[in-house]
Amino acid sequence: MQTIFFKNKPRIVATGTVAGPKECAGVVGKYVDKTLTDDMFGESTYEKAECKMLSYAISRAIENAGATEEDVDLLISGDLLNQIISASFAARDFDVPFLGVYGACSTLAEAFALAGALIDGGYAKRIVGATGSHFSSAERQYRYPLELGNTRPPQAQWTVTGAGGAFIADMGVSNSQIALTSATFGRVVDFGITDVNNMGAAMAPAAADTVLRHLRDTGRRAEDYDLILTGDLGALGSRIFKDLVWEKGVDLQKNHVDCGEIIYKVIEDEFQGGSGAGCSAVVFNSYVYDKLKKGELNRVLLAATGALLSTVSSGQGESIPCICHAVSIENV
Amino acid sequence: MQTIFFKNKPRIVATGTVAGPKECAGVVGKYVDKTLTDDMFGESTYEKAECKMLSYAISRAIENAGATEEDVDLLISGDLLNQIISASFAARDFDVPFLGVYGACSTLAEAFALAGALIDGGYAKRIVGATGSHFSSAERQYRYPLELGNTRPPQAQWTVTGAGGAFIADMGVSNSQIALTSATFGRVVDFGITDVNNMGAAMAPAAADTVLRHLRDTGRRAEDYDLILTGDLGALGSRIFKDLVWEKGVDLQKNHVDCGEIIYKVIEDEFQGGSGAGCSAVVFNSYVYDKLKKGELNRVLLAATGALLSTVSSGQGESIPCICHAVSIENV
Repeated sequence: MQTIFFKNKPRIVATGTVAGPKECAGVVGKYVDKTLTDDMFGESTYEKAECKMLSYAISRAIENAGATEEDVDLLISGDLLNQIISASFAARDFDVPFLGVYGACSTLAEAFALAGALIDGGYAKRIVGATGSHFSSAERQYRYPLELGNTRPPQAQWTVTGAGGAFIADMGVSNSQIALTSATFGRVVDFGITDVNNMGAAMAPAAADTVLRHLRDTGRRAEDYDLILTGDLGALGSRIFKDLVWEKGVDLQKNHVDCGEIIYKVIEDEFQGGSGAGCSAVVFNSYVYDKLKKGELNRVLLAATGALLSTVSSGQGESIPCICHAVSIENV
Repeated sequence: MQTIFFKNKPRIVATGTVAGPKECAGVVGKYVDKTLTDDMFGESTYEKAECKMLSYAISRAIENAGATEEDVDLLISGDLLNQIISASFAARDFDVPFLGVYGACSTLAEAFALAGALIDGGYAKRIVGATGSHFSSAERQYRYPLELGNTRPPQAQWTVTGAGGAFIADMGVSNSQIALTSATFGRVVDFGITDVNNMGAAMAPAAADTVLRHLRDTGRRAEDYDLILTGDLGALGSRIFKDLVWEKGVDLQKNHVDCGEIIYKVIEDEFQGGSGAGCSAVVFNSYVYDKLKKGELNRVLLAATGALLSTVSSGQGESIPCICHAVSIENV
């Protein structure tokens, strides 16, 4: 049993999101709090822009909850950059205790799961969980400097420039009906993929492992969820994920959507769709949260995956270990 | 109030530690489970050696607790390497849910605090919290390749080659008398230090902030603790820390010890003493845990600090934000 249950059903009171112009040209455009006109956000470097987006998403989630910084007991955040500098430097802007986490693109689900447990257990009343990513800082850290003009292989994804977070609170302090009800912490799964451009294939087995365990632990069927939302498997990874769970007798054809698959209008450059910690952070906290609020969705399993590689591990010939954390979010 | 209290007092059942030959020449030598004869641990790269040490410490903690991998509900770990690859790749060795955290050298305390809350809240019965570091992988990631033979300035510290972890369990499943009783999550504190060789000065204000808040939140005086154990402030940082709390009316002359200050026999190379996530992981889980078991210490505040910088943040002119998480560990 690796699923934990939240008896007191902590509430998502509000969210805050910001995304770049390319991201906002798609489905999330009309739901995000702020659309950037360029990807620098007035800063001098991509990394500083990424940090500023994360800081903005945190502030905006607090503001949208009608709260102030003093109300927040804990900030849980992480990101893709070395030593999670976006999260640490964003945390410097707030006089709030900070818990740094690392789960690559699974960070949003990891932060939500921890926030759920800490609030449900009575250790905190109000927690902000947030993450983000930036296409240009990710490219130069994980792959090549953009200036080289490298071509992208067809299995590649496009790292989302954006950030999102949620203000999560004890049921006693909010009348929001959108609650965290359970969470499944994932195991590290490594299927031996070494192609760092093929993250979808690397992460799909981790997603399948966690989603299947979640269903087994909770005694639920896939169709009990209106939506099983993976983070950034992309088009190819998403198909592999559905095949893997199908082999175990679970049919996700009707209710599975991948954030990476829907965030862009798929044109030439993005190939398999979006990726990055910001992908599920933006899609869940804008578009999906809005549908939960309106009652168009009532039960969502957010299953965000992360590829736990670094340039050093790949350079030393290692394959890509992956993880998936899942959180059940429901209208109660 | 940023301190959380553990009513059910989760127990540290056992620990596991491994350290390099240089580390074992000092005070921890006779307490660690395994002393390496060289710093490669039979691996081909420093990073793989670091990962193997962490994996060893986790296995050994489980074994010393008389348990097996199947008994463990969750592994909480992180390290200093980009994308915490030591922790992620070590987690791949275990079929156990994994929670990646990042707090630089404060990781041990962060992992213990989370383990305490998740067990105390009834979400898990048995958790392993562990971390480690390696001198050579840290040098080439944060500073220069060793082959360059750069000289070290006098304010520098020496990253500990070692790893340590603890098997923490619900009081109902263990008769250990060593318990986690409370934890204080730290805020990010930045005093504007930009010298990446002067981590002690950068981290001391974070340590002072968290320790003072812990004492205020718990209503305890410094002398209520037999030992207030900081992680790796080093000799200089330790003096600054004591001065900062002294200014607030707290005298730590008699009961403060810094892991970095005691791990080495101070000879020429280490200057200010040890540092790295492995520093407090090795010193606490071997030497200090042994004294707790023997009743020579009964109440210890483990206050591990982390410097949340990266080479990119420093290269872009940023100062060093720091954090300190504290956990109270007592003979009950």
